[in-house]
Amino acid sequence: MQDRILASQLIGYIGQQVKIEGWLHKKREVSSKLAFLVLRDRTGLVQVVIENEVEIEKLKGAQAGSIITVVGVVNEDARATIGVEIKEPTITVNVEVEEVLPVEIDKPISHDSENFDTLFNYRQITVRSVPERAIFKIKSNTVQAFRQFFWENDFTEIHTPKILAGATEGGTEVFHLDYFGKPACLAQSPQFYKQMMVAAFERVFEIGSAFRAELSFTTRHVTEIMMIDMEMGFIDNHQDVLDMTNRLINYVVNKTWETSAKEFEMWGATKPVLTEKFPQITVKDLHQMYFEATGEDFREEKDTSPIEERWICEYSKEHWGSEAVFVTEFPSASMTFYHMKNEDKPEVAYRADLLFRGVEIATVPMREHRYDKLIEQIKAKGLDPEEEGFKYYVSAFKHGLPKHGGFGMGLERIVQKMIGLNSVKEAILFPRDVKRLSP
Amino acid sequence: MQDRILASQLIGYIGQQVKIEGWLHKKREVSSKLAFLVLRDRTGLVQVVIENEVEIEKLKGAQAGSIITVVGVVNEDARATIGVEIKEPTITVNVEVEEVLPVEIDKPISHDSENFDTLFNYRQITVRSVPERAIFKIKSNTVQAFRQFFWENDFTEIHTPKILAGATEGGTEVFHLDYFGKPACLAQSPQFYKQMMVAAFERVFEIGSAFRAELSFTTRHVTEIMMIDMEMGFIDNHQDVLDMTNRLINYVVNKTWETSAKEFEMWGATKPVLTEKFPQITVKDLHQMYFEATGEDFREEKDTSPIEERWICEYSKEHWGSEAVFVTEFPSASMTFYHMKNEDKPEVAYRADLLFRGVEIATVPMREHRYDKLIEQIKAKGLDPEEEGFKYYVSAFKHGLPKHGGFGMGLERIVQKMIGLNSVKEAILFPRDVKRLSP
Repeated sequence: MQDRILASQLIGYIGQQVKIEGWLHKKREVSSKLAFLVLRDRTGLVQVVIENEVEIEKLKGAQAGSIITVVGVVNEDARATIGVEIKEPTITVNVEVEEVLPVEIDKPISHDSENFDTLFNYRQITVRSVPERAIFKIKSNTVQAFRQFFWENDFTEIHTPKILAGATEGGTEVFHLDYFGKPACLAQSPQFYKQMMVAAFERVFEIGSAFRAELSFTTRHVTEIMMIDMEMGFIDNHQDVLDMTNRLINYVVNKTWETSAKEFEMWGATKPVLTEKFPQITVKDLHQMYFEATGEDFREEKDTSPIEERWICEYSKEHWGSEAVFVTEFPSASMTFYHMKNEDKPEVAYRADLLFRGVEIATVPMREHRYDKLIEQIKAKGLDPEEEGFKYYVSAFKHGLPKHGGFGMGLERIVQKMIGLNSVKEAILFPRDVKRLSP
Repeated sequence: MQDRILASQLIGYIGQQVKIEGWLHKKREVSSKLAFLVLRDRTGLVQVVIENEVEIEKLKGAQAGSIITVVGVVNEDARATIGVEIKEPTITVNVEVEEVLPVEIDKPISHDSENFDTLFNYRQITVRSVPERAIFKIKSNTVQAFRQFFWENDFTEIHTPKILAGATEGGTEVFHLDYFGKPACLAQSPQFYKQMMVAAFERVFEIGSAFRAELSFTTRHVTEIMMIDMEMGFIDNHQDVLDMTNRLINYVVNKTWETSAKEFEMWGATKPVLTEKFPQITVKDLHQMYFEATGEDFREEKDTSPIEERWICEYSKEHWGSEAVFVTEFPSASMTFYHMKNEDKPEVAYRADLLFRGVEIATVPMREHRYDKLIEQIKAKGLDPEEEGFKYYVSAFKHGLPKHGGFGMGLERIVQKMIGLNSVKEAILFPRDVKRLSP
């Protein structure tokens, strides 16, 4: 049997007879003696020119989606994206689809939020559109780039449970389930586990499912995402964690633009402008700069506001040449118990937020690693360190953890921002939100 | 500041003064003038010889787990695993641990199932034992080897939802949860999703969490695992899927033994003996061979029995030179609706089970890809293809899927079998079973 040749390989077979296989993506009958079909395989689209009545007849009942084999001659064609077309075809219809596709896939599918029901309810169809598929090729390449970086930097991959006895951080917004009669919930984050694992592996990462029961009806919120988590020990200071994060983002952006250039182009995406060392600005300075620029006063706020985040990203792109910025020195008054206070300025915590293209994509803290201080900080929040949700966690500290820090980052958010999609949902094959539980 | 040198790098610094950092793993005071300590970092153990009263004094209150920095001279020592020890040390205790570890970690930790409570309840401590940590280094290297193979063979990584509206396959043994007032459950498998995604990517894989509410009290069953799922389209026949699976297993075993030789050695693990093409035996022939060899008669059974699986693996290792075997031609009478019947022998299905070291590690079928046949087979099981759990799935077929097949394989099972552990639980950092929901 003749070997199958993929669309992307055809340029190497000009003048030769080849066998291609794929989906009937589109067809156009000009006359009983001239027709065109476009075949789609996993690498691209190929046009086939049919000038033979018998072959045209074979496609009569076949709708888009039909599985076909074409044996024909590769003809150079400068107008085609892949540089070639197929002539003198002999066609075999392997699976004949009789019904017309419910969504047209040979033109871009609307990503207006009003069209989300079509986009997601027919995902098994819409993903067949080439630009749609490109989003998930980019996502696949992005997650691989993250892993490659972790791998090259001596991180160990871990897998931690997603069913927990208690809510992490005693938080709300968790999904509850029945575990053989016992109450349980779904993990919002592997944070406690990864910190505990620093004790054996020093540097760990996990890329896995995270669940948040956010009762929000905006187009922004989803309940299930892929979280990229890392944690590294034996740092000298907070800056070490920021440096690693900084290098990671540069690596991922460069790598992904290498592996997915064609796919980014389909979406008109521009490669993020990034400096080798991302600019850093303190919360205080950001408030002040924003006040001076706009007159709007956030100087008494502990946190940054979304509007400031967008503004500083724009400013940074223009003046500092970077679409990524670290905002540093968040007030310790608003910090969580597992963050560490700045030793020189106890009024601020070792916490930085990484902003990218207008949004916060990760909080990058140094953790409190000293057992006594941690216990103190847990109690100061009115929590009980002896409680089931804490006791294993604090035991890891009691028996020695080095200085460490890390972050959790949503894979879909990064992909969304790299491509320039409006909603994180568009970077998820089968999104879950307060109203959407299927397909 | 002097750079930190890791244990594994010290052999390159003989005669030089270096800085090492890590955990105080063990200490032994011979006299007020002679003491030994073992420092553990992420790459191994280093012995430090202390012949100075001041330095010995510094460690007085420090228990195992303390975080220490040692600056000293690298001395060749053929008796040491890493070939060197440290002399003339200056010690800094960065984090002093006062309490004695609840579990001894400088000797192997018992893996008897009676000791599982200690092993798992103190995981934040037990993982610090070097052989214990080795299991999870192997697991990290194994999962990376799987991905590397998929990557090199043009598979796209996908991420599918773990919260579902209905139970996949309408099955039992699912965990139920409350989704904003609507009933939902946790995914047992991404099978339907990956089949649907063949329509865009042809070859897909996912490595993610899978959940089974198995009410079983044996040491074998866990409720949460990492599933390695793949699906490939445009196959010519069932054998194509078996070949890919075959190549994958060979690749993973070879790669993992390259990256984790030291870790396998700690467990006395022997590299699996595998042929390039795994032997294949039909269910019928297996029953017959087993009957002839033992007198025990399973010839009327549709499925293989665990005892036959162990027996044929032993037989295959000895006579065929392979610890992996495909059992083929399962009766179609017992097949699921998504399997395809053998076109030449309709009494059997295109299903093979991959046995490895005595157990089934994957069912590797060719799927029914023809819409009409699939609907027929769903109805024959008394199920309704229009039901929420099926309607998106069957729509993908209605609009064209090529011949395809794939498998789901538990990562932990593979790791367990490669190392030679008794229970799959031992290959999970924080296992979940009917009785265990924390840490």
